[in-house]
Amino acid sequence: MSGNILSNPIDLKRIRITDAFWKKEIELVRDTVVPYQWEALNDRVPDAQPSYCMHNFKVAGNINRKEEQETDYVRPVYTVNGFCVWPDDPGKPEERFYGFVFQDSDFAKWIEAVAYILQQYPDQKLEKVADEAIDIVCKAQQPDGYLDTFYIINDMSKRFTNLRDHHELYCLGHLIEGAVAYYEATGKDRLLQAACRYADCVAEYMGSGTHQLHGYPGHEIAEMALARLYEVTGQEKYRDLGLYFINERGKRPYYFDGEDHGAIDQSVALRYHYHQAHLPVREQTEAVGHAVRAVYLYSGMADFARLTQDDSLKAACERLWEDIVQRKMYITGGIGGTHIGESFSFAYDLPNDTAYAETCASIGMMFFARRMLEMNPVSQYADVMERELYNIVPGGMGLEGTSFFYVNPLEVVPEACHKDERKAHVKPVRQKWFGCACCPPNLARLIGSIGTYVFTETKDTVWVHLYIGSHMEKQLRISTAQIDVESGFPWDGHVKLHVACDTAETFTIALRIPGWCRTYRIKGLENAVTEEKNGYLYITKAWKSECLELEFLMEVQVLDADARVREDIGKAAVMRGPVVYCLEEADNGKELHLLKMDEDAVFEMEQKEIAGESVIALRAEGWRQKKAQNTTLYYPHRRTEYERTTLTWIPYYTWANRGEGEMQVWTRI
Amino acid sequence: MSGNILSNPIDLKRIRITDAFWKKEIELVRDTVVPYQWEALNDRVPDAQPSYCMHNFKVAGNINRKEEQETDYVRPVYTVNGFCVWPDDPGKPEERFYGFVFQDSDFAKWIEAVAYILQQYPDQKLEKVADEAIDIVCKAQQPDGYLDTFYIINDMSKRFTNLRDHHELYCLGHLIEGAVAYYEATGKDRLLQAACRYADCVAEYMGSGTHQLHGYPGHEIAEMALARLYEVTGQEKYRDLGLYFINERGKRPYYFDGEDHGAIDQSVALRYHYHQAHLPVREQTEAVGHAVRAVYLYSGMADFARLTQDDSLKAACERLWEDIVQRKMYITGGIGGTHIGESFSFAYDLPNDTAYAETCASIGMMFFARRMLEMNPVSQYADVMERELYNIVPGGMGLEGTSFFYVNPLEVVPEACHKDERKAHVKPVRQKWFGCACCPPNLARLIGSIGTYVFTETKDTVWVHLYIGSHMEKQLRISTAQIDVESGFPWDGHVKLHVACDTAETFTIALRIPGWCRTYRIKGLENAVTEEKNGYLYITKAWKSECLELEFLMEVQVLDADARVREDIGKAAVMRGPVVYCLEEADNGKELHLLKMDEDAVFEMEQKEIAGESVIALRAEGWRQKKAQNTTLYYPHRRTEYERTTLTWIPYYTWANRGEGEMQVWTRI
Repeated sequence: MSGNILSNPIDLKRIRITDAFWKKEIELVRDTVVPYQWEALNDRVPDAQPSYCMHNFKVAGNINRKEEQETDYVRPVYTVNGFCVWPDDPGKPEERFYGFVFQDSDFAKWIEAVAYILQQYPDQKLEKVADEAIDIVCKAQQPDGYLDTFYIINDMSKRFTNLRDHHELYCLGHLIEGAVAYYEATGKDRLLQAACRYADCVAEYMGSGTHQLHGYPGHEIAEMALARLYEVTGQEKYRDLGLYFINERGKRPYYFDGEDHGAIDQSVALRYHYHQAHLPVREQTEAVGHAVRAVYLYSGMADFARLTQDDSLKAACERLWEDIVQRKMYITGGIGGTHIGESFSFAYDLPNDTAYAETCASIGMMFFARRMLEMNPVSQYADVMERELYNIVPGGMGLEGTSFFYVNPLEVVPEACHKDERKAHVKPVRQKWFGCACCPPNLARLIGSIGTYVFTETKDTVWVHLYIGSHMEKQLRISTAQIDVESGFPWDGHVKLHVACDTAETFTIALRIPGWCRTYRIKGLENAVTEEKNGYLYITKAWKSECLELEFLMEVQVLDADARVREDIGKAAVMRGPVVYCLEEADNGKELHLLKMDEDAVFEMEQKEIAGESVIALRAEGWRQKKAQNTTLYYPHRRTEYERTTLTWIPYYTWANRGEGEMQVWTRI
Repeated sequence: MSGNILSNPIDLKRIRITDAFWKKEIELVRDTVVPYQWEALNDRVPDAQPSYCMHNFKVAGNINRKEEQETDYVRPVYTVNGFCVWPDDPGKPEERFYGFVFQDSDFAKWIEAVAYILQQYPDQKLEKVADEAIDIVCKAQQPDGYLDTFYIINDMSKRFTNLRDHHELYCLGHLIEGAVAYYEATGKDRLLQAACRYADCVAEYMGSGTHQLHGYPGHEIAEMALARLYEVTGQEKYRDLGLYFINERGKRPYYFDGEDHGAIDQSVALRYHYHQAHLPVREQTEAVGHAVRAVYLYSGMADFARLTQDDSLKAACERLWEDIVQRKMYITGGIGGTHIGESFSFAYDLPNDTAYAETCASIGMMFFARRMLEMNPVSQYADVMERELYNIVPGGMGLEGTSFFYVNPLEVVPEACHKDERKAHVKPVRQKWFGCACCPPNLARLIGSIGTYVFTETKDTVWVHLYIGSHMEKQLRISTAQIDVESGFPWDGHVKLHVACDTAETFTIALRIPGWCRTYRIKGLENAVTEEKNGYLYITKAWKSECLELEFLMEVQVLDADARVREDIGKAAVMRGPVVYCLEEADNGKELHLLKMDEDAVFEMEQKEIAGESVIALRAEGWRQKKAQNTTLYYPHRRTEYERTTLTWIPYYTWANRGEGEMQVWTRI
């Protein structure tokens, strides 16, 4: 690939997170989220929708053993929007598959989070629970490697017949991700072998051969997972399968057209734009369809662009990135403007109150962004990672770690959520668990692996993409460098970088200059050669024992949206550093739409406790529209009057932690 | 009923519309709409969805004749959202029922419009077509009077088993309305007899008797129709049946709970709020559910409040009226804030771009308003009639008379209609016909009967509710008064009232002072006793040959919405007299959301041709927001800059007559 710098993320083993903000989040995942999710996977959380995930694996495992005696264990089944629905006859309910067709992936995401936790915090008890879970999962695997409980339980003869709507390849992808992580964390390869066998089984069925299915995933993820499996195992067949999926996608005639999707499932088709299968990937210029699927696909495309040095694939990634970031991304980093198909809406259509902005889609943006960085260290990619990390990602989870947002709106009036069915998808408070529980375990695996987003490296360069307090070790040609990042992010812009080498050795550290930062200062550059390029400050010197001190001036910024964003016209949003702020009813009273910012507002910072979380809130004098003394719904216009009021903004990610109330990010100015 | 003045509308025979605005509309109905709709009812409009209405009557009529030989003519059928769906087996397709379960009502609305036209413009050819249509309809009637083709064709044993979702009583109501009108127009009672027999059949099945069904309509209209049938025939059984429906509605346990709605139809239940059957009608305080059903019910309630002198029923009507008009009505007169269930949303939730505001619901508001006026002449009721009449009603139909809006949004960006499935119900241009074609024939019957909304009367008082040019005759004690209204409405506020009596006789004329009018002048009050009460100027004198000259000052008004209407905050709308104005792309370019009104705007009137219609447009200097030179989607706020531009408003009812483009009623100020 011409003119690119390829760099690699750092193995979690080589990094230790020391950051005040993220250590707490990781420990929350370790202490609360992972155990809570294990209970959820086993249907033991009171008042929450059951997952049925482990139930299904157990049922599938029993079928395997039974099949040694009897082989006709086949059941009728149909699905509505991917949810398994049974005919009225109860049969043997304890032996049925329950839940969504992709329920297996709940385990895979959980085991992946467990792996990241174990890599950082060895825990024999947790590892034992995980090993036992793996045992249950592996027992469900078929002799030929097939491993998807929906079809194992229901009807093996139907497998791979509905790649568009059912999630066998999605489950494969998550299984690989979890298995690789667990192998890397523990060295145990039982699950990795299972994942390889399932991948082998798929590779047997799918590919360019005459007798093979020329199919590809309806819900992408297998692409990036196979790239990872290839990198871990070195086996080219996995690279080839992933690349086959990438290259086959969107070709005419459409593969999905030849499948049987059943009468009931036709309605979810929304054409193949929904699946990003409307065009071959290299011809795609607009981010369309289901937002999570989209960014998972683009992540896989970026992996294969890098692995195969494919400029046309890279160019497609860049176009799609640009389309999202410049036309379809909320200021919070949320993507997916419409709940219909959980999809991107058209360019600049970013409604605040009916936003979808699924938590998983923002996690997918992190995947996509880091892969773009691996191909080319340009700071805009890391800027987006940071935007996701301090807004949607922590906001997707309650501060207590046991409640979750699937949808992340930018404006909420609880009455509308309760009474207006157009906003039925928008919840004014976080929910305990979801039947379609993709987001909570996705958050756990993302937060657990946060260390892999902080740096990338080549032999002689380390890029610092995120200012997250951490320690890492880098093997140089002669020496080993111990690199420590101390950071006040996201509350202040002070960063210290300690570098200690056994013996002085020359290499380069590239520090990202955040896109939001207009002024920064740096101390400790003596004897260094520096160059600013693509948003990074490259510092080359012979490092021995040094301390760089950085200060990124973290001003409050009042921001406008492009005038084509109709929903934000006449409004502004407030950020400080990477943190997006919002107004909440708890601080500002009801009817937030009556509030108005002052053009010349002076912001004060205030240390504030929100549900035990210490954050920096912002205060500024603003205005509240006075209500007219009208007695009718419509009345002659008078120049609008306002009264002085103090507006208090809190970090977006902390909203809805103090009960139910109004919230808004964009305020009139 | 205490302290009320009951008055009656005027028989269409006694009135002749001479009004420039409305005569044209009525002639459009006569010359274009009625013939076009006859073609539509017979599935002869190219490129439009077939109606199947007359087809179904013919099939049902054939079944009757066949049944003399064979009696087992029963077919399996199920419905999805009221639409008849057939199993795969084709059977005898030519003998099937097609379309919605309420398809019969298309004929009834058409014959009603025909009747009003015939009453004003005798036309033997049209009458012959109508008589032949009536012949087809009457042949479908069953020996016991039953007359609903859906069940006659499909399965008579299932009739009256799903009052909630199927529309037998709705079809009865429309049949009565059409039959009464046709009888009044022509003196022919064949259809009236058929309607009476169907009402008798229903009265046999339904009522308080032990062996009767204690049911009531899922879609209301039979209530007001039965009141009308009672008034025409004098038969108390029709009054009793209508009153039974009113009184039974919403009682616990819910009648609908005991019905079989089938598995597929459960999803449309939306609880009984949708049907206004959640509470007994006298306990209802909020307008909820399907907006058309709601106002049809309230109209029936008003009829029976008047007929039975029931104060508690009248009070319920007043509360529900108030709730609509003060909290749930668009400035255009549109009602129904959400397409989900075609329903009222919660108080003050009046989104402009996803509005439903069904044409039929505004027609229903006309029914409700006139009935409230009949009970009590208070000008606010007539104000609402006028708002509907100059905005939604004429806007519901293209200026050419052959295209129609079902949904009447207040803001349209065509790209959003095409690409955003949340706005799939919002059409940027009028459609030729609808499978669910309630609105076009409803418009025809409303416009055809416009004369009945202009006046009401008692023995010695005539109320002029609407300034629509017309001639009417009133029989006094001794003399006959010829009353002529000449009016410049809606373009100017000049009105002349000529009164001529054979011999001078004292009576009262009450002239409505429009709610939008801040100043009026009147000439010709010599020797009169005048009193202003409830928005009317009562003029009592001995009339001989007089001319009153009125001038209602028709200023341009800039209007605000109550601050609780979130969607209109910071915005204003423009009206002149009863006409709501809007900005359209054809005059103002794209991106209407960038436009801003000037607080001190001076409006100029401009005579303008829109698709052949001569209207008064308004022009004022305003502002267009300058686009910032931003290169990113979000960027640091700068004080917004505007450039001067001329804004041109056109009457709302004329929008979308010049091709597809943006439109908005509420503009930033």
